Amino acid sequence: MRIDVLTLFPEMFEGVFSSSILGKARDKEIVSLNTVNFRIYSTNKHNTVDDYPYGGGGGMVLKPEPIFGAVEDLPTYTTPEGAPAKPRVILLCPQGETFTQKKAEELAGEQHLVFICGHYEGYDERIRQHLVTDELSVGDYVLTGGEIPAMVIIDSVVRLLPGVLGNEMSAVTDSFSTGLLEYPHYTRPAKFREWEVPEMLLSGHHENVKKWRLKESVIRTLERRPDLLKDRVLSKEEKKWVDEWQKMRQEESTVQEK
Amino acid sequence: MRIDVLTLFPEMFEGVFSSSILGKARDKEIVSLNTVNFRIYSTNKHNTVDDYPYGGGGGMVLKPEPIFGAVEDLPTYTTPEGAPAKPRVILLCPQGETFTQKKAEELAGEQHLVFICGHYEGYDERIRQHLVTDELSVGDYVLTGGEIPAMVIIDSVVRLLPGVLGNEMSAVTDSFSTGLLEYPHYTRPAKFREWEVPEMLLSGHHENVKKWRLKESVIRTLERRPDLLKDRVLSKEEKKWVDEWQKMRQEESTVQEK
Repeated sequence: MRIDVLTLFPEMFEGVFSSSILGKARDKEIVSLNTVNFRIYSTNKHNTVDDYPYGGGGGMVLKPEPIFGAVEDLPTYTTPEGAPAKPRVILLCPQGETFTQKKAEELAGEQHLVFICGHYEGYDERIRQHLVTDELSVGDYVLTGGEIPAMVIIDSVVRLLPGVLGNEMSAVTDSFSTGLLEYPHYTRPAKFREWEVPEMLLSGHHENVKKWRLKESVIRTLERRPDLLKDRVLSKEEKKWVDEWQKMRQEESTVQEK
Repeated sequence: MRIDVLTLFPEMFEGVFSSSILGKARDKEIVSLNTVNFRIYSTNKHNTVDDYPYGGGGGMVLKPEPIFGAVEDLPTYTTPEGAPAKPRVILLCPQGETFTQKKAEELAGEQHLVFICGHYEGYDERIRQHLVTDELSVGDYVLTGGEIPAMVIIDSVVRLLPGVLGNEMSAVTDSFSTGLLEYPHYTRPAKFREWEVPEMLLSGHHENVKKWRLKESVIRTLERRPDLLKDRVLSKEEKKWVDEWQKMRQEESTVQEK
């Protein structure tokens, strides 16, 4: 896979692209990670990339020329089979579709991703209409630029590429793949300060441990993210845990009312 | 404000902490941004920070000692008034509360934030129970570590601190502050390739431009994020646009059925 990031702050990506999983994926040549400072595609003598908005108002707007110029100047990536790969051109913006694990899986099937990162400014609408294939937002909060959101998406996509994660890591059950939040983890020491590991986990009884963990996962999901449970078909046992938990909650609130 | 990030990959933060808004906020001494490699707080001779989970299963679990050691060794931050500030200790994890703009505003009122970034591993449950004040997730997708989510939160919080954003930037209407997505922006050239700026924006009629923008905002929000409109009290005019849009949609689907 080839990834190009259009940004005015390429130095923001150096540490992230060379550390940990992304650095390893790059070293193994599973992914090629590049940054392009689109200021060099400015078409005016002052090298500006933004201008005042038509119709007035605060803020600046990214001009279309440098962005179109930078995207159209990228090398055409060819698939391992030699065919030209049309890139997905992704605009990071708060108006975009909310990024999810499903979208990460979809993007992991592509050959070439291009990310356009604006910074405080808005984007000229013609960039959205005639260049971009996907508008994405990583969450309902305001950031100063598209750089950190691009890192979020790149990290989540690259870790899904074959050969990137070792077996020991892919073995970890990921929260948003099972539809349940993870159960509590414990490691040595069995007693840290006055806090002990639950006895069940030291019992060596694998079936009971498995059941305890599933129950903890269901209850944690109920408490923190009940929305995730809507998509899950509950087993008879899971249903029982949910009922017990709801009954307990009801009793607690009755006691509080008294 | 003082921010400390506990991470095994401090080099990931160098570019992000020294560029753009974060770099400026640091230079102006509005925020102090620090990283701590918690491996130096390992209590065993091999300097390991993780271990196998009790009860078996794949993946590794971060041990409690290095994390408690690193947090407890942080300098006590004192407020400008000289009082000691108790830090908010934030764990980045998929099981956490979903981070939102409201949470960013809440954290921007604190004096000292500590971020704990795990990497592929789980966290020993005693860290959650006895050290952490907030568990946060930036979205429903799987990442390789807490580092990039910590950057997301730090960026969104620091830009809210007084003196960080210049007037020209804070003047920009932020999507998640108004409850509506932004209207389309256009800047020069008035004609780029065959694509022209909407005539309305060139009219110089400020009242009409304002109305056009509000209408575009309402319609874009309807199309892309109708969930955001639930919390908004619509004016009579806005209600009319919503009705028109719904009627148009209905007619479109009737035509398609025929």
